Amino acid sequence: MLATPIGIILYGVTGRMGTNQHLVRSILAIREEGGLPLADGTRLLPEPILAGRNADKLKALAKVHGLDRWTTDLDAALADDSVEIFFDAASTQLRAGLLRKAINAGKHVYCEKPVAETVADALDVARRAESAGICHGVVQDKLWLPGIRKLKTLIDSGFFGRILAVRGEFGYWVFEGDPQPAQRPSWNYRREDGGGIVLDMLPHWHYVLENLFGRINAVDCLAVTHIPERRDEAGELYQATADDAAFATFAIHGGIVAHFNSSWVTRVNRDDLLTIQVDGTHGSAVAGLRRCWTQARVNTPKPVWNPDLPPTIDYRGGWQEVPDTSDTGNAFKAQWEAFLRHVKGGTPFPWSLRAGTRGVQLAELALQSSAERRWIDIADLKT
Amino acid sequence: MLATPIGIILYGVTGRMGTNQHLVRSILAIREEGGLPLADGTRLLPEPILAGRNADKLKALAKVHGLDRWTTDLDAALADDSVEIFFDAASTQLRAGLLRKAINAGKHVYCEKPVAETVADALDVARRAESAGICHGVVQDKLWLPGIRKLKTLIDSGFFGRILAVRGEFGYWVFEGDPQPAQRPSWNYRREDGGGIVLDMLPHWHYVLENLFGRINAVDCLAVTHIPERRDEAGELYQATADDAAFATFAIHGGIVAHFNSSWVTRVNRDDLLTIQVDGTHGSAVAGLRRCWTQARVNTPKPVWNPDLPPTIDYRGGWQEVPDTSDTGNAFKAQWEAFLRHVKGGTPFPWSLRAGTRGVQLAELALQSSAERRWIDIADLKT
Amino acid sequence: MLATPIGIILYGVTGRMGTNQHLVRSILAIREEGGLPLADGTRLLPEPILAGRNADKLKALAKVHGLDRWTTDLDAALADDSVEIFFDAASTQLRAGLLRKAINAGKHVYCEKPVAETVADALDVARRAESAGICHGVVQDKLWLPGIRKLKTLIDSGFFGRILAVRGEFGYWVFEGDPQPAQRPSWNYRREDGGGIVLDMLPHWHYVLENLFGRINAVDCLAVTHIPERRDEAGELYQATADDAAFATFAIHGGIVAHFNSSWVTRVNRDDLLTIQVDGTHGSAVAGLRRCWTQARVNTPKPVWNPDLPPTIDYRGGWQEVPDTSDTGNAFKAQWEAFLRHVKGGTPFPWSLRAGTRGVQLAELALQSSAERRWIDIADLKT
Amino acid sequence: MLATPIGIILYGVTGRMGTNQHLVRSILAIREEGGLPLADGTRLLPEPILAGRNADKLKALAKVHGLDRWTTDLDAALADDSVEIFFDAASTQLRAGLLRKAINAGKHVYCEKPVAETVADALDVARRAESAGICHGVVQDKLWLPGIRKLKTLIDSGFFGRILAVRGEFGYWVFEGDPQPAQRPSWNYRREDGGGIVLDMLPHWHYVLENLFGRINAVDCLAVTHIPERRDEAGELYQATADDAAFATFAIHGGIVAHFNSSWVTRVNRDDLLTIQVDGTHGSAVAGLRRCWTQARVNTPKPVWNPDLPPTIDYRGGWQEVPDTSDTGNAFKAQWEAFLRHVKGGTPFPWSLRAGTRGVQLAELALQSSAERRWIDIADLKT
Repeated sequence: MLATPIGIILYGVTGRMGTNQHLVRSILAIREEGGLPLADGTRLLPEPILAGRNADKLKALAKVHGLDRWTTDLDAALADDSVEIFFDAASTQLRAGLLRKAINAGKHVYCEKPVAETVADALDVARRAESAGICHGVVQDKLWLPGIRKLKTLIDSGFFGRILAVRGEFGYWVFEGDPQPAQRPSWNYRREDGGGIVLDMLPHWHYVLENLFGRINAVDCLAVTHIPERRDEAGELYQATADDAAFATFAIHGGIVAHFNSSWVTRVNRDDLLTIQVDGTHGSAVAGLRRCWTQARVNTPKPVWNPDLPPTIDYRGGWQEVPDTSDTGNAFKAQWEAFLRHVKGGTPFPWSLRAGTRGVQLAELALQSSAERRWIDIADLKT
Repeated sequence: MLATPIGIILYGVTGRMGTNQHLVRSILAIREEGGLPLADGTRLLPEPILAGRNADKLKALAKVHGLDRWTTDLDAALADDSVEIFFDAASTQLRAGLLRKAINAGKHVYCEKPVAETVADALDVARRAESAGICHGVVQDKLWLPGIRKLKTLIDSGFFGRILAVRGEFGYWVFEGDPQPAQRPSWNYRREDGGGIVLDMLPHWHYVLENLFGRINAVDCLAVTHIPERRDEAGELYQATADDAAFATFAIHGGIVAHFNSSWVTRVNRDDLLTIQVDGTHGSAVAGLRRCWTQARVNTPKPVWNPDLPPTIDYRGGWQEVPDTSDTGNAFKAQWEAFLRHVKGGTPFPWSLRAGTRGVQLAELALQSSAERRWIDIADLKT
Repeated sequence: MLATPIGIILYGVTGRMGTNQHLVRSILAIREEGGLPLADGTRLLPEPILAGRNADKLKALAKVHGLDRWTTDLDAALADDSVEIFFDAASTQLRAGLLRKAINAGKHVYCEKPVAETVADALDVARRAESAGICHGVVQDKLWLPGIRKLKTLIDSGFFGRILAVRGEFGYWVFEGDPQPAQRPSWNYRREDGGGIVLDMLPHWHYVLENLFGRINAVDCLAVTHIPERRDEAGELYQATADDAAFATFAIHGGIVAHFNSSWVTRVNRDDLLTIQVDGTHGSAVAGLRRCWTQARVNTPKPVWNPDLPPTIDYRGGWQEVPDTSDTGNAFKAQWEAFLRHVKGGTPFPWSLRAGTRGVQLAELALQSSAERRWIDIADLKT
Repeated sequence: MLATPIGIILYGVTGRMGTNQHLVRSILAIREEGGLPLADGTRLLPEPILAGRNADKLKALAKVHGLDRWTTDLDAALADDSVEIFFDAASTQLRAGLLRKAINAGKHVYCEKPVAETVADALDVARRAESAGICHGVVQDKLWLPGIRKLKTLIDSGFFGRILAVRGEFGYWVFEGDPQPAQRPSWNYRREDGGGIVLDMLPHWHYVLENLFGRINAVDCLAVTHIPERRDEAGELYQATADDAAFATFAIHGGIVAHFNSSWVTRVNRDDLLTIQVDGTHGSAVAGLRRCWTQARVNTPKPVWNPDLPPTIDYRGGWQEVPDTSDTGNAFKAQWEAFLRHVKGGTPFPWSLRAGTRGVQLAELALQSSAERRWIDIADLKT
């Protein structure tokens, strides 16, 4: 039985993440498996069309992966009836405009986060998509990371009892460019170019918290720029105008408190680049990107504060790892599969443009909170 | 050569911390060493008088340790000319009154923290002590813990370069009283009895931060009561009205940001009950109560964000322990020795009643911040 | 866009090092990458011409690597206008003559070390190159080894504070030819053939020390021949007339002392064939060819001399590895790339024939020091 | 059977090494074993008399160890006929005078190194002892350390074949007194007080080399002062006028070359504070203070110089430990036992005052070598 082809414009996947995660490990990986099996027994075969603005890069990328379709003429590609989905992983500044164009052309749309540079713009796009009745979604890959999925399983199984608090630590040291080159592009450290750790990471914390723990009602954030000068890709000194660390507290529906430290100027003395601790009345868990450890109420030691003596308890030793019992594969691919099944199989896909707009909103209000030095309540987006 | 005796009233040391830390491991330990050597070659021999309100407990404690002097008549003890120092480790509610009485009697005073229940009261005591020209001090034992001392040495040696941020994690699980008994007294969980983690711990964070990193200019704190009901020493259910967790951010002079999570309802997945991470341009450190690890700029790995693959870097393995190269012994005893040398040798003792009042102020303003949901600036205390 | 070709005579690359390092892993590797990218966006494509005296070997080598240009007629090759660079890796005795010929033909010259057998001869070649205004350089590959580069980064970042001393240990056991064959050619052990560990290794120590630590002002060396008889490639006994070990101390500008033991008759109880320890006021490092470990002042243990008890400190455990955060690839290729950019892009190339002459001078004066049993001061070379 | 008592004056053993090594772990340890068994079946019981200049210290030391004999009147003690041996571990400056006095009184003499501050003085004492016909000796404890004894066993068994070279690395970091206190007395760093690493350590290298490898014919040494200022026991800054590091090469009879680096300003990346590597035609060994590893000719790997690739040989893994098969106990006690057997049993004791004088000579000539920047030949001492 032949698989049913589905045309997908992949816009702006020539960068490291776009190429590796969306093209190679998602779309091409689904093709290599013979297409995505649907509930009705048929298979869906993605037919990618690489699109963007740099013909040389597109041509080279297509050649390396044996693809014959690439274009710099987006209008023509959107006019092609065999194309059903438009995906965008290019720059944030162009995103809203590209999405409107694709919605107008009647395509389903899927895109990287953030949806837009402002809530107003993101909400406009979301409402257009809702009015048009198309399928739409935003990448929220961390939900499919093994560590986060294990947390979700623990929550669903009632392991925690009543959840009290969530503590996240994210970050690593991004080199200043001297004496050694930085491992992230310099625009990340310039606010005028859309940089900053709040805009980059708070949309992630948004969907992780809302999907796992509940709606975020208020945010209190301090965004700071610890390193004021850096060297760019050419070795030139520039002013770092964007925040490189954020200390944010979130009030979650039901009384849960979440606190996340995010930093590009911290050295990692943890098990992973992101760790999340959840404390509940019946148990606690610590998750990294892939692994997760728990301590149930009945296994909780009773420390006595005796600081003039060495600790007598091996605190870490009292935690038990949650084994890998299911594997959804690459996180980006898993979400692609969910989106394709949503488009063709009608299954639910809650990670919509509106959900993505809430992530933009959280980042925006966190920056307002930092400027005004107070908590900001988060209102519902208008419909 | 005989040691010079010095009479010291020890008030309220019948509790666990008072007996172990102040009586046995400080005062009696100094006696067993033949007294404290001073710079002029003489030795000072503490002669303790146990004081308090419960004659039975005092008598029993004196007997166990072979002491012949104990009393419930504080006025009489203060009238004794051989007594030069009054020390208090009894309840917070009584402290300010006891200190005033001792100051009026012309004694030097030393006490546990907090100095009083309110800043106004603490400041009044501090100003009386200053006017009276006596020596005075407040216990700030954590400054003598090996882990904190190692951090101090790292700072003094310039290891960190410019310090950017400090992150503290403190806490452990205090049992709710059911099914197993709590390991802390129930008054700690009732605000009306002076309980709460903010009042208990923020004075500690105050002197640690100000002695190591600089003056605290502002505080932003969220205090919460995660567990609303607990069982007391008699097994009776009571309402926990005091905060049992606090998420606090501090703005320190010079742009350093400090964030401390404090909680009695968290399970410990750390090296120690308190860990403090300091990040600077040239290096970072993580300290527990006794041990400390560093990672210098030149040893910092360069992680690349590749969440779909297992970590390739052993993050913890890249840290190096700071060895023990000096030993000041028990932290409480070390501060006692400093106070005795201050009284008899004239050496400086910056951990004064006024410094202790600043700690009360920080806790008070942190609770105000939590109530008003905003940052609170910290003004200088009036002289 | 096509790459610009540049003709390069590779003279004497039929030996193990010449073939592997210069031809295959440098010139051919650059070709396989599509040429060397220059700052102006163009690419430079090396077009090698294999040259030498043994037609059979040249022909065979060319065939293996799919090259069509090889010759034993050097004069003709130098007359070819498409050739811009002459490179020599043949025997030391012929080198100065070959370089003069290439300089006369107006070619840029690049060569293996040592430049010549004597300082006088090397200096003559350097001065001719300078007068001719051509580009010139000498292989100093160890500067691009990861271990040495890490040391350089540590120095540049100020890790060491004031540098006090440098200790190098180099060597391994070169078999005597009986019972098992030697792993180095026999001429290395005959002074009359240009052998000896001083002439071989001190030019390396020269450029490592001068590029990392500063100018060498004086040398004190003891060169010895530990094994007086060896068996050659044919199994015949011969007199080993050249030094096979050298104990050399160098006085470096600014008061740094460097001591290097070099030996072909030592067994290796170290992490690598070459290890260099650097001690400074603020930290120390030990580097091998590729890896490097540090110990900062704050991590330095405090040993107490107690020889009748087993050590209580794990001395090696107190060192932290410097991670790999940048990769310049093969050391020989990296220097080739720098030379090509110097020739075509005008970037600096400090590793000139004059620098190479200083290396010959150091070896020559070290042998004089050994003969006269005294320190020898090192004068500047005349211009 | 009762043990035969032998009176021994222990002069100047109130310091750390004197008390621990000579009094407690040697003399008192022999007493606790019921005395030293001699070849004739009798036992010899040391009867110590503590002597020195500080009555308080002597009294306290005597009391702690339950001894009833101590004195500040050396003349009276030397007049006591029950005293047969005079031992001195006090300051170098007083030693020669004390030894002359004891020799004049007809006592056997034994002492710490160095014998005197100058060769002339040491030789005078040695000649007086020889003329007087008494037994005499100098402490050379390292000869009884397990690591050095294992080397000796390897030499005696012919393991090395012909010995080619000996390389010693000694040292550790002695703190400068700021930020943390130094672990050695400040006089060690002042030449005017007899300090310096050459005077301290070269006498040790002398007896180790001469007892294991052969007579030292010449010395070449560079003594340097890396740290010019330190803080003393009171925290006061002082000028460090003595050498704190020495790079010394020794020419040993038979063509063996020995090179020792000694430093108080190096960080230890070795197995022990002192390591000695011996290379011979048939095998090599590396010894620390207690452990020793060997690599025989037949186990020697054949490294190939391939610096652009990671090492393929585990260099350290190819060494085999020499097991502990004999135990002579504490090194100081072992030499005391040998001296007592020499005095009472007539067994040989080659570690005489003349041997000790050779150690002083080596240090003296090493400093001359450093000043004159040349090798110095070592003449025989006149008889």
